[in-house]
Amino acid sequence: MNAPTLSRLRDTRVTLSHGGGGRAMRDLIDDVFATVFRPPGMEDQARLYDSALTEPGARLAFTTDSFVVTPLEFPGGDIGKLAVCGTVNDLAVGGARPLWLSAAFIIEEGTEIALLRRVAATMAAEAQKAGIQIVTGDTKVVGRGAADGLFVTTSGVGVIAPDRDMAAHHIRPGDVAIVNGVLGDHGATILAARGDLALSSDIASDCQSLGHLMQDVLAAAPATRAARDATRGGLASALNEMAEAAQVGIEIDEDALPLRTEVKGMCEILGLDPLYLANEGTLVLFVPSDQAGAALAAMRARPEGAGAVAIGHAVAGAAQVRMRTAFGGSRIVDMLVGEQLPRIC
Amino acid sequence: MNAPTLSRLRDTRVTLSHGGGGRAMRDLIDDVFATVFRPPGMEDQARLYDSALTEPGARLAFTTDSFVVTPLEFPGGDIGKLAVCGTVNDLAVGGARPLWLSAAFIIEEGTEIALLRRVAATMAAEAQKAGIQIVTGDTKVVGRGAADGLFVTTSGVGVIAPDRDMAAHHIRPGDVAIVNGVLGDHGATILAARGDLALSSDIASDCQSLGHLMQDVLAAAPATRAARDATRGGLASALNEMAEAAQVGIEIDEDALPLRTEVKGMCEILGLDPLYLANEGTLVLFVPSDQAGAALAAMRARPEGAGAVAIGHAVAGAAQVRMRTAFGGSRIVDMLVGEQLPRIC
Repeated sequence: MNAPTLSRLRDTRVTLSHGGGGRAMRDLIDDVFATVFRPPGMEDQARLYDSALTEPGARLAFTTDSFVVTPLEFPGGDIGKLAVCGTVNDLAVGGARPLWLSAAFIIEEGTEIALLRRVAATMAAEAQKAGIQIVTGDTKVVGRGAADGLFVTTSGVGVIAPDRDMAAHHIRPGDVAIVNGVLGDHGATILAARGDLALSSDIASDCQSLGHLMQDVLAAAPATRAARDATRGGLASALNEMAEAAQVGIEIDEDALPLRTEVKGMCEILGLDPLYLANEGTLVLFVPSDQAGAALAAMRARPEGAGAVAIGHAVAGAAQVRMRTAFGGSRIVDMLVGEQLPRIC
Repeated sequence: MNAPTLSRLRDTRVTLSHGGGGRAMRDLIDDVFATVFRPPGMEDQARLYDSALTEPGARLAFTTDSFVVTPLEFPGGDIGKLAVCGTVNDLAVGGARPLWLSAAFIIEEGTEIALLRRVAATMAAEAQKAGIQIVTGDTKVVGRGAADGLFVTTSGVGVIAPDRDMAAHHIRPGDVAIVNGVLGDHGATILAARGDLALSSDIASDCQSLGHLMQDVLAAAPATRAARDATRGGLASALNEMAEAAQVGIEIDEDALPLRTEVKGMCEILGLDPLYLANEGTLVLFVPSDQAGAALAAMRARPEGAGAVAIGHAVAGAAQVRMRTAFGGSRIVDMLVGEQLPRIC
């Protein structure tokens, strides 16, 4: 026999009444979201306590991201996994330990409730894996044509230990740049999944949570200066933002960049630059050279960092990113100016 | 001479490149949002500290809401004011002091940048009024037809004082139900603003932040059991949720309900029930009868509570809401079943 909350929701698609604030909305929330997220308490607001927050000098970390990826499901993940990983990673690269997540859903009328269940299930699974709890949420329904299926907005709260102060402006000439794995898989996967390029591919999104990886790196290499997840705009945009914030140059080595042959090939065919392809489980960090080995070893000890490599270093001089090419030349890697691929995350 | 960040953004409408993670996105964020929100620091993640969070026994409050209201601007507010007030009020009715807000924007390609500036300005103004700081945010752009202009998702973090424990299940028979002002103005305003009903009206949304009001009520009537803001689904849905959580009956008095003649008239013409109309600055709270006078006086001392009145009380018995009608009868006020008005908030 099903639990009473499971028998209430008989619809197979979302209707406007599921957004009306009444019984139908309550049923949708109870059945699809609350049963898998299991938020603490019954108020709209979560009430939370963690002893780490009361440590003298501890700070709270707070971040938010909306996700509008299309298609909603793709090899390696879906919009829900992306939303959990994206917010966990924003917290992690700032040196915070991720604690709590909120999730707000904007749903187009007609969306399949089975899809919502799948998305909620992947969110719950990924949250558990990342050690974060989804504690509060919201649903809104808009009419057909007023949204594209489903948008998810996650916000995250974490705690930054008293002695931790990671920031891009701390990067100094000589610091080593390290990435935890291959570049561009998410962007290439979404491109292929859209199907309108007649590309078939075995690539899957790198979508993964990096909270545990970052904690291990910080334990092994406590002097780590700064990290960024290389999402929209790719590695190139992350490095440019870091160079600008630190007012240092950054030199990377084309030969050192970890790229799958398939991703390279796809970029060559389509005239795309893999440095600008989005990643959803790949970060770049800068660490003083005497701790670079320790940081690399800590990364490689985890599956999320098995492919970790040093790709370059910071140098004195103008705040720009330069790449030594495979042919022995050197070129400026600028910030992305236009739009490479819309709705990548 | 303009600051450099102000001169960068020359477009009058949002294009897909403003969502691409590169230079154009950075310019949009710096120019339209960061200049008015002035978030602390330059990392993606806000790093926050408030001494109240470190008090022994203090808890953190965390809440989120997406806003999809149409039209985006209406008498008494816009989607941004609604987003700030909505999240501030979710924190406030739980007994938390609102501290920090995140704001995530999903923007349809073609949206006027001047509209974004107006929304950002009202958000900044309302946040200042409410004593909360907008500390982090995100923007995403989707193509024409993939969203309806602009959706805003706000999340809020506040602090609940060690001795505070407000929850609907604390409501006891005999407790007095109090509202801070007139009912249904927001719902009626949106209905009229859509224009397709050929209604003209002078009503404005009640959209306002209730954080200061709640702090004053809690100082004057510390035994206040629970409060809810009567948003989607109106007063009727808020009362039903509270009755269910507390397993008490709730009796309200039709004659006592504060309703504008205009709102009453509009409901009569359209066959709507004002008890289900949305409010965005109106809350209902339950307080033991010996502190009801103090709670009312504290509310009436503030502009947001000038129209405060007692509307009924909790009674022993089945968890349902009953209304004594103006004609001397009594009827059950059930939870909203269908959809009264889509995209009200």
